[in-house]
Amino acid sequence: MEVAVMTAAKARQIVLAARPQGRPKLSDFRLEETVIPTPGAGQVLLRVQYLSLDPYMRGRMDDRKSYATPVPLGGVMQGESVAKVIVSKHPGYSEGDIVLAQTGWRTHALSDRADLRKLDPAVAPVTTGLGVLGMPGFTAYGGLRVIGKPKPGETVVVAAASGPVGSLVGQLAKIAGARAVGIAGGTEKCAYVKDELRLDAAIDHRDSDFAAKLAAACPDGIDVYFENVGGAIWQAVLPLLNKFARVPVSGLIAQYNGVGKGDGTDRLPATMRQILSKSLTVRGFINNEFAAEHYPAFLREVGAGIAEGRIRYREDFVDGLENAPEALIGMLEGRNFGKLIVRVGA
Amino acid sequence: MEVAVMTAAKARQIVLAARPQGRPKLSDFRLEETVIPTPGAGQVLLRVQYLSLDPYMRGRMDDRKSYATPVPLGGVMQGESVAKVIVSKHPGYSEGDIVLAQTGWRTHALSDRADLRKLDPAVAPVTTGLGVLGMPGFTAYGGLRVIGKPKPGETVVVAAASGPVGSLVGQLAKIAGARAVGIAGGTEKCAYVKDELRLDAAIDHRDSDFAAKLAAACPDGIDVYFENVGGAIWQAVLPLLNKFARVPVSGLIAQYNGVGKGDGTDRLPATMRQILSKSLTVRGFINNEFAAEHYPAFLREVGAGIAEGRIRYREDFVDGLENAPEALIGMLEGRNFGKLIVRVGA
Repeated sequence: MEVAVMTAAKARQIVLAARPQGRPKLSDFRLEETVIPTPGAGQVLLRVQYLSLDPYMRGRMDDRKSYATPVPLGGVMQGESVAKVIVSKHPGYSEGDIVLAQTGWRTHALSDRADLRKLDPAVAPVTTGLGVLGMPGFTAYGGLRVIGKPKPGETVVVAAASGPVGSLVGQLAKIAGARAVGIAGGTEKCAYVKDELRLDAAIDHRDSDFAAKLAAACPDGIDVYFENVGGAIWQAVLPLLNKFARVPVSGLIAQYNGVGKGDGTDRLPATMRQILSKSLTVRGFINNEFAAEHYPAFLREVGAGIAEGRIRYREDFVDGLENAPEALIGMLEGRNFGKLIVRVGA
Repeated sequence: MEVAVMTAAKARQIVLAARPQGRPKLSDFRLEETVIPTPGAGQVLLRVQYLSLDPYMRGRMDDRKSYATPVPLGGVMQGESVAKVIVSKHPGYSEGDIVLAQTGWRTHALSDRADLRKLDPAVAPVTTGLGVLGMPGFTAYGGLRVIGKPKPGETVVVAAASGPVGSLVGQLAKIAGARAVGIAGGTEKCAYVKDELRLDAAIDHRDSDFAAKLAAACPDGIDVYFENVGGAIWQAVLPLLNKFARVPVSGLIAQYNGVGKGDGTDRLPATMRQILSKSLTVRGFINNEFAAEHYPAFLREVGAGIAEGRIRYREDFVDGLENAPEALIGMLEGRNFGKLIVRVGA
């Protein structure tokens, strides 16, 4: 017991030890022990309860210009978490408050409040703030509402349909009156998409007959393709897109670990030709660009959908901060199922 | 004299003799003589004066699904022309009326009026109806106004900047208060873009230092890239695009003759990554999708700009229907300068 207390008196964090070449390895991360920091005036000390793992984190490990600054070598991995205020020197927070915070991959963090959002456990389980009622959910909502704009009777296709973004895209498409077709990897995920999320069809991208099955599931073509994967799936979607189709691009997880040698084909000209001949709209986005205008409606609508059971979600838990690297590596290979969350502490 | 009259009593037309492999050859076309058709009730007989040659015609020669039906083998090449009504059995038209018509590549054509638009030679030279005040001009106008939406102080880049679409894009960008940078092939075209069209800069894409010069001409990046070329120029533009840049795609002339073997690089992943990380909007379009809402304003605004000398344009004339195939082939290689028009008859 005394040992446990002494252990708990140290903070732990995971830093970027090396920039990955292709898929990350465990040796690209390093677990460090540090002292628990002491909050100054106006600060709170947070104990991380749940750390969110998300595909964007792979991008931050590269030293490449992007919409966000990369994690420096030796720096703490970035990430959002659900955390408890354990010491407060800020009048707006009390000990015991549960907040959403950009703590990074660590057990303890200081905050001066700018990035905190209080969570009410009575409204929904606090972990939903990392998934269906958080950044992934708002990515689905914003991309579909602002760019995809599905009309009743149109066909919406979403890849990674069992994941935290895709699962909400498909369900919101159904709520909008569209036909929703989900793409997922493996029979278990496809069964979840069809039976639990209640999409109109689920297609397994590992199926050798994938392109033909996708075409069969979209007899009227595709009006909205929510792109969060990239790579081979796009090649199957492209010929099915209808005139004036919209393609919100929220992620390219299949590309994040670097691109393989390929077969020597430059696929850009064929894509540009389809964009031209079908008057396609291809629009990349980051969820926060829509936040000012759409976040309150998102929380209200999706929150109500969850409370009433109309919107479903799934969370995959991993125990222990030390297991976060392996969990992230697995996610980038499609091994997780729902929203991936690390239980860091209590 | 009698011989000339007998020759004139035959109509001539150019048909698609073979589907081109890559760049078209003269043997892909065939000149045919036919009888001059006789108009029935409600029809007019048209004598083609000026035939427009446009990049989209290359696409119609392929048997590939696109936004338009391909020309059948042995069928008359499609195209728009300025024509004179020489016999009218339609109450809405008089002999001598000058109209814009979808006649195809021929000297004479019947019309039942659905596709005719009367031109008033007092407003502007009738050939402008094929260029700056016609389809190419409206392509520039619609793409820039509806998709590009340049704001004062933003940077607009347009390829093929001396051509019928690009030259108006650049001038409209200037009128909108943007910095306008034109890309063209060769010093003569670049001088025209800079000195006559009065764009802020003109960059020669044949320059070995092209990408560096384009970057230097866009010190604040690119907010709108009007894509009507495709291929290598896109690769130089892509890294310069700013967050939230808009890319109207109206043509891909560099791709129309088929894509070369390339260097084995798949350029699609890098383009998708930029679309995602910079929240780009890439939007293909065909001018007619904006016609209902914007065509009257286009005619009014651009017509006034021409009348007042604020908007300039250039027309390249080729004499004789029989020379249309060679002129089209040359245009696809960038040999024309302004709007390419064939003088077919009087």
